[in-house]
Amino acid sequence: MSELKQMNHANLQNLHDKAKEAFEAAKKENLSLNMARGKPSPEQLKLSLELLNTVTADNMDDHFSVLNYGMVDGLPEAKELFKELLEVNTEEIIIGGNASLNIMHDLISKALIKGVIDSDRPWGKEDHVKFIAPVPGYDRHFTICEQYDIEMISVDMLEDGPDMDKVEELVRNDASIKGIWCVPKYSNPEGITYSDEVVDRLAKMETKAKDFKIFWDNAYAVHDLTDNPPTLKNMLEACKQADNPNRVFMFASTSKITFPGSGVAAVAASKENIDFINSQLSVQTIGPDKVNQLRHVRFFQNYDNILTHMKKHAEIMKPKFDKVIEILHSKLDSYGIASWTEPEGGYFISLDTMDNCASEVIRLAREAGVTLTGAGAAFPYGQDPRDRNIRIAPSFPSLGEVEKAIDVLCTCIILVSTEKFL
Amino acid sequence: MSELKQMNHANLQNLHDKAKEAFEAAKKENLSLNMARGKPSPEQLKLSLELLNTVTADNMDDHFSVLNYGMVDGLPEAKELFKELLEVNTEEIIIGGNASLNIMHDLISKALIKGVIDSDRPWGKEDHVKFIAPVPGYDRHFTICEQYDIEMISVDMLEDGPDMDKVEELVRNDASIKGIWCVPKYSNPEGITYSDEVVDRLAKMETKAKDFKIFWDNAYAVHDLTDNPPTLKNMLEACKQADNPNRVFMFASTSKITFPGSGVAAVAASKENIDFINSQLSVQTIGPDKVNQLRHVRFFQNYDNILTHMKKHAEIMKPKFDKVIEILHSKLDSYGIASWTEPEGGYFISLDTMDNCASEVIRLAREAGVTLTGAGAAFPYGQDPRDRNIRIAPSFPSLGEVEKAIDVLCTCIILVSTEKFL
Repeated sequence: MSELKQMNHANLQNLHDKAKEAFEAAKKENLSLNMARGKPSPEQLKLSLELLNTVTADNMDDHFSVLNYGMVDGLPEAKELFKELLEVNTEEIIIGGNASLNIMHDLISKALIKGVIDSDRPWGKEDHVKFIAPVPGYDRHFTICEQYDIEMISVDMLEDGPDMDKVEELVRNDASIKGIWCVPKYSNPEGITYSDEVVDRLAKMETKAKDFKIFWDNAYAVHDLTDNPPTLKNMLEACKQADNPNRVFMFASTSKITFPGSGVAAVAASKENIDFINSQLSVQTIGPDKVNQLRHVRFFQNYDNILTHMKKHAEIMKPKFDKVIEILHSKLDSYGIASWTEPEGGYFISLDTMDNCASEVIRLAREAGVTLTGAGAAFPYGQDPRDRNIRIAPSFPSLGEVEKAIDVLCTCIILVSTEKFL
Repeated sequence: MSELKQMNHANLQNLHDKAKEAFEAAKKENLSLNMARGKPSPEQLKLSLELLNTVTADNMDDHFSVLNYGMVDGLPEAKELFKELLEVNTEEIIIGGNASLNIMHDLISKALIKGVIDSDRPWGKEDHVKFIAPVPGYDRHFTICEQYDIEMISVDMLEDGPDMDKVEELVRNDASIKGIWCVPKYSNPEGITYSDEVVDRLAKMETKAKDFKIFWDNAYAVHDLTDNPPTLKNMLEACKQADNPNRVFMFASTSKITFPGSGVAAVAASKENIDFINSQLSVQTIGPDKVNQLRHVRFFQNYDNILTHMKKHAEIMKPKFDKVIEILHSKLDSYGIASWTEPEGGYFISLDTMDNCASEVIRLAREAGVTLTGAGAAFPYGQDPRDRNIRIAPSFPSLGEVEKAIDVLCTCIILVSTEKFL
């Protein structure tokens, strides 16, 4: 076998015809496989079922204040637990509801209406508001910007985080750039962990907007697949050391630790920022669901138990990641028509086809019963400029289904790629 | 005994001195009684403890979709349950998180940034945005307006709802008036239920702003204290009949049915409005806590059981309301220095002192260890123009504490009132 671009016409045609045949065969199987979203599998959800038994009618007699109004910034015991996950102290954290996305959305909408702690005026009163969007990135971050007419400026992800030369140049010269989205550990979709240097440069860089904010979505903080996971430098500490303590909002949640629908989300920031957020929060709510926070506190008890729990997740996830990588290697390695990441954690594998092939590959896969994340989803406005990125989410299907789905995906990639050369 | 204004100096002085003596005696008791907020008592919270046992590790095996992401607008079974409370169908309802205040806040903030369904432009792009605030009213509604620079125009509450002549005149002539806050059943703090006529006039009235919205906070929909409670006309139906189907957002929650911190909140509106809200909601969240919704579904099963449950709340609440009214009558009736409401449900009793007495009464009561809602809280910007309104929240303290607290309150009212005449 050789790279497609070096293949003669007969061999290309032969490869194409075989792929076509496999594709038609797959279609006849009436598959219905979904690798579109980073959803934990039922097997993973079972790991946390006992959490549902931690709070019962019999053990709440001393906890009526937990059942009642109050504690707008969360249960103190929950702060104690999650401060270790976020590497902050209890004054630097708010424990919220079931979704960190919701907290991020709220912070953006309040910034637009009222401004952040160091704004001269609300972001919504500026002529333009822009955010830096490292690409490929998380579609739901980008959708918030799109919804609120915040212009996104794409910056490429490199091996160790966003292209910092580019980021620094942009924020130094444009006061309308108010923020950047970051998934700093096992980035969505590439699985990249930001290097210490990138963390420090983000913390230190000169920004023309004095109210510039880093939205640090540490969604996969403990979602390691290996025994020696990469470490992420503490961004709040880096910001403090750079004399920009109020620059970062850090987010985490248990959505992919316990239950996606019924987890606990948290935001961490400087005490000054947290006090500011709390003053706004009390306008909006009389308190989060503290009972569910207590369930998490009782289930985990301490941070070490969270790490032990995550190893059980890894035992389920790792074989799926391995299977995807294995099949991609065996089916595509020699052809030079695709490259992919091999993350040590997180929920995704990012695959690049040749230019201008991804949407057709995704369309064909769907025709054969395999749903992948929509083409362009990982880019602002859903536009992948090279139409080559495909996000693979192997968590939800069973191992057998993953194998089948990736097999179909490879067939579609070969089919579309050979057609480009024929 | 006679009215204070007809009392001679000696009798006044005597009354004052006795009140002073009682006040000083109360201070020595080192009381610590809180009637500031509408918090259910521990006894009430116990009524719902079994709810915590309805979802366990053992009975969720068929419900992995409830534990996972999705169902942004709520669990279908929860819609079935709460549609009866809100008197709508399942297409007209969204089941959310633990706080209806949060949903209201979100709708206001999105209206400011994006506009509501029938807006030409975001409310935040208008020169002025105003809301009508029936007074006295709910402080947390007013705080949202204050936070977001929405000017409030006070309109007096009459026996059967806001002064509709005034409301109609205002909204007919001022395009910047975008909405009105209503607590239509057992209003906070007076306990007034809007008459059918008021409901119809609100639904029908001509508004200069075509995107005028009624925020219908039906917080006490089933919180009756009597066997023959007043009925509230269905506002969404009235709006449909008046050809203004998109005029109203109706809110309810189980905060004071099950647990204030861990209940379930809902918003109901026309299907068109609900579709519009859902399209925005999916930007902000991947779904509410459906497990807690399932707990409520399993605990209540049907609407009749909610009503039965509320009778148990009434058995706890009614004696406290009765005690407050009884003491107010026995201590203050003859003096002509205070009037108060005698609600058939809800969480509050509203008391008016003579003009310019309320803040001093509240200050003295606090000095004697009885915390009441802050003076002016029931008015926009915390300013009671006549400084006479005191909100009494008898739910949280025990019956004995209620008795003691109201006794102290009456003492303070007599003390401050006699000083006005002396």
